[in-house]
Amino acid sequence: MNFPSKLVENAVNQLSSLPGIGKKSALRLVLHMLKQEKHNINQFGTSFIDLINNINYCKECFSISDLEICKICSDPKRDRRTICVVEDIRVMMAVENTQQFKGIYHVLGGLISPMDGIGPTDIKVEELVEKVENGKVQEIIFTLSTTMEGDTTNFYLFRRLKDSGVKISSIARGISIGDELEYTDEITLGTAISSRLPYENSLSK
Amino acid sequence: MNFPSKLVENAVNQLSSLPGIGKKSALRLVLHMLKQEKHNINQFGTSFIDLINNINYCKECFSISDLEICKICSDPKRDRRTICVVEDIRVMMAVENTQQFKGIYHVLGGLISPMDGIGPTDIKVEELVEKVENGKVQEIIFTLSTTMEGDTTNFYLFRRLKDSGVKISSIARGISIGDELEYTDEITLGTAISSRLPYENSLSK
Repeated sequence: MNFPSKLVENAVNQLSSLPGIGKKSALRLVLHMLKQEKHNINQFGTSFIDLINNINYCKECFSISDLEICKICSDPKRDRRTICVVEDIRVMMAVENTQQFKGIYHVLGGLISPMDGIGPTDIKVEELVEKVENGKVQEIIFTLSTTMEGDTTNFYLFRRLKDSGVKISSIARGISIGDELEYTDEITLGTAISSRLPYENSLSK
Repeated sequence: MNFPSKLVENAVNQLSSLPGIGKKSALRLVLHMLKQEKHNINQFGTSFIDLINNINYCKECFSISDLEICKICSDPKRDRRTICVVEDIRVMMAVENTQQFKGIYHVLGGLISPMDGIGPTDIKVEELVEKVENGKVQEIIFTLSTTMEGDTTNFYLFRRLKDSGVKISSIARGISIGDELEYTDEITLGTAISSRLPYENSLSK
């Protein structure tokens, strides 16, 4: 693209460096910004500078937090013996929203993905192993996506933790609530059949 | 959403204030940023602050330009008697890419849209009328989108300019090059038939 202004070109390049935003959408967004109040766009820019310079991670669970130790880790009502292992704070927020989990979290900060050059040392694996070896952990719940990367990470963590004596579980994989069986893919349906459980345990709470 | 950090919440709110970006995508983008180099995200934020504080518009055509008068308006090879009226610099860049137009531009900076509260005084209509009245303009080419807002703006401009003696044209509306006729909507096909032209004039250049 042949931009009439370096400033616009620069802003477009920055926006289109984000995943899922192309040059054309970025230009549309930049023109939208130019119609806003100067003050608002200054705040827009400042919010990312503040973010990257002041971001803090909880020393215990590695989730993003404004405090040294996040609200969940410092809450005495949470059960510290049960750890929910998640990829990032998006999953953590989703699990929190269910209000079904009363334990604490461990945020890996990514998934093992050889294709993207992300190995076990790039995410918080050692920290989890240490926690299990030193602590009073009773159960680890793998709460990772059902993708190749999620499965790889699950398998790696399982191998590292299986001799620790801690109970290792994975969230159930099966048919989503509300799904119609005839449209379910066969791998999910097959998994759901082989993972069947007593009817009285299968009711959603 | 219940964010574990004010900084993240603020950045997510800023990103999701842009059209077409929801809270969930914004959070995904923010987490992506947190994996980047600090330096890059500082540049990201600064690019928008620079943009909004230093943006300049060409005094003649109102396109965005780093110069007082943009490169096109100050180019002696461009035909100053033919003015292409466009909504914004995206359309101007698209027309420039065709290399079919040797005149100059007039950037309206928007389209008349009563639904969004945008009237003729919110865009550069008076400036175009003045240009036509004072200048040596011979032809005005309406190059606006074929939407309700584009048609409204075309009609308003036509009413304001029709007594000026200047030739007023609109870009041709018809079948896109490469389109298959059986999939063309009936309004486009109808317009293309009623706007038919001698075969020898219809060949694409």
